[in-house]
Amino acid sequence: MTRLPSPRLLMGPGPSSVSPAVLAAMSEPPIGYLDPELFELLEGIRAGLRILFETKSRFTVPLTGTGMAGMEACIANCVGQGDRVVVVSAGYFGDRIAELAGRLGANVDVVRGEWGKAVETSALRTDLERGSPPVLVAAVHAETSTGVRQDLAPFAAVAHEYGALFLADMVTSLGGIPVDVDGWDIDIAYSAVQKCVGAPPGLAPVTVTDAVLESMHQRGLPHANWYVDFKLLGAYYDSPHTYHHTVPVNNYYALFAALGEAFEEGLDERFKRHQTASNALIAGLREFGIEPLAPEAIRLPTLNAVALPPGVDDLLVRNNLLSHHGIEIGGGIGKLKGKIWRIGTMGFAADMKNVERLLAALKTELYR
Amino acid sequence: MTRLPSPRLLMGPGPSSVSPAVLAAMSEPPIGYLDPELFELLEGIRAGLRILFETKSRFTVPLTGTGMAGMEACIANCVGQGDRVVVVSAGYFGDRIAELAGRLGANVDVVRGEWGKAVETSALRTDLERGSPPVLVAAVHAETSTGVRQDLAPFAAVAHEYGALFLADMVTSLGGIPVDVDGWDIDIAYSAVQKCVGAPPGLAPVTVTDAVLESMHQRGLPHANWYVDFKLLGAYYDSPHTYHHTVPVNNYYALFAALGEAFEEGLDERFKRHQTASNALIAGLREFGIEPLAPEAIRLPTLNAVALPPGVDDLLVRNNLLSHHGIEIGGGIGKLKGKIWRIGTMGFAADMKNVERLLAALKTELYR
Repeated sequence: MTRLPSPRLLMGPGPSSVSPAVLAAMSEPPIGYLDPELFELLEGIRAGLRILFETKSRFTVPLTGTGMAGMEACIANCVGQGDRVVVVSAGYFGDRIAELAGRLGANVDVVRGEWGKAVETSALRTDLERGSPPVLVAAVHAETSTGVRQDLAPFAAVAHEYGALFLADMVTSLGGIPVDVDGWDIDIAYSAVQKCVGAPPGLAPVTVTDAVLESMHQRGLPHANWYVDFKLLGAYYDSPHTYHHTVPVNNYYALFAALGEAFEEGLDERFKRHQTASNALIAGLREFGIEPLAPEAIRLPTLNAVALPPGVDDLLVRNNLLSHHGIEIGGGIGKLKGKIWRIGTMGFAADMKNVERLLAALKTELYR
Repeated sequence: MTRLPSPRLLMGPGPSSVSPAVLAAMSEPPIGYLDPELFELLEGIRAGLRILFETKSRFTVPLTGTGMAGMEACIANCVGQGDRVVVVSAGYFGDRIAELAGRLGANVDVVRGEWGKAVETSALRTDLERGSPPVLVAAVHAETSTGVRQDLAPFAAVAHEYGALFLADMVTSLGGIPVDVDGWDIDIAYSAVQKCVGAPPGLAPVTVTDAVLESMHQRGLPHANWYVDFKLLGAYYDSPHTYHHTVPVNNYYALFAALGEAFEEGLDERFKRHQTASNALIAGLREFGIEPLAPEAIRLPTLNAVALPPGVDDLLVRNNLLSHHGIEIGGGIGKLKGKIWRIGTMGFAADMKNVERLLAALKTELYR
């Protein structure tokens, strides 16, 4: 680099700041994509991801690409032309699932909920009762646009009652709050590594049950998408390790190190740390008259969506935070653009010192 | 990392070994995907890629994903359902273009040439004269499976004569031998960063002319593929910088540093270094009775495909090179599996000291 990036404390919707040890791991010299050590590393990563997802599924892998690549890959591998798909959406990323499924040729029905609230299971049930049985029902566990946690087990149960697969977006939950893929009976899920998992962006953890993987193969899915074809990828990740694409091994190093840190800390401790940081942040913001969007019972401790106080210049404050204090927080997106801030307490950044630093900086900028 | 990867000299078909400075850049702390410094960095990378590709096209970008993602993205953005596509193929990667285009719904015709030789322009012309006009003609500049360099300017000229776009695979040429996208009248091209460009894998440089980009948009392409939709990506890479996905910023750092090293060395010097390393390698191999597959006039100095001498155990020698000497070379793929070795002299690894080290190790293993 001719010029190094300015130091940033990343407390937006992601990427989040990562630990020095994870960054150091990322700069180890690359090895080849067929090196026996690569597959040892990959197995270590896959074992770690199974613990994070709480699943025993063999096809639990770090897909090459970011979280949105994971979303597209999961839909493409279970949805064919004309298949009916039902998406539960109360936010930007629920809408995105619907958009991507539509582009992949699905006949998409959206069960809409109010942004900032959870969606009732009865709303999904009503939709399923009315239409023909869908191939897939999808929902977002932790909606990054609203800071809302949505219980997934009831959705999965209803989806299965109607013979549909259930797909979960776990981008802003994995590694930050408990997830239980097997316990909640989720067939397929994707996430990202740059939020609560603690690695730089570039990989999308994905998990699919063996039964669903087999049914995808039998249906000849995915049709168009070669790069994220789970059948081809499975033949590379597992024996016979047939060449598919050159996997980003340095991103693997970083993810492996991040998983190691998570298990060293302990997942319960890690979840507690996220909650503690979020609680302190919300308490501090309330002193400035800034209130969270979501009710406490469904509020994410990873992504804090808070209503902008009247008279505050959204862009000015965020720009000043970045340029004067080196702290990034996020603005609203979609229908909440200009109305909220999205403040991440995720991964390595979910720390009391960081929260205090942000609150002090925000105080300076709000009362400037 | 609980365990560091073993040191490897990567002289296979890629990834290639990268410089310590590039690895150090990769471990700088991440910044956000909307940070003004991110877009400065991105502009620097794009300017550098334009120099490597020799193009003025604005849409010259580091796509998130590896080279194969670049291949799929380029095809998906210019080919719709039922479009006729003609692929010139004399190797594994030419065949892959045909396979991916077929999956994307194209009506694909392959102009086949002998593996290890270049394809005559007349063969392409004959095909184009016979069929209905194709939307796209595609060919590989540097065929990684055979070590053959294919002249692209004549193909582009014939394609344009018949009203087709011309797509070039430059995965194993960009940064290692001269390429001239504008001079050769190439409409769209993709590459990878982990071969001759000198960065770890994870990004696919792509370039598209303004006119072709406009025509893609008018046709509403790509249909199914949201993650690599050039229209959506353009609105993120350029103003108004609308959020699309979280770009892998640490991979950007590494690519920026690698481009800086390339320009510091000078491209002419860099190409000369690749040629010198390849010449020394071939001369040394000939002393062991190992001959290159391709005739000298069309032989790549980046990827040396050489015929396996009779009686040599392919896997045993390659495994011993890796485990006893820490050197990776590649085996044959496709119809050349077990028949050739593919030895890379690419990027940071294209160096006389490395060639001498490999030849010494090979001598030990061949005469063990």
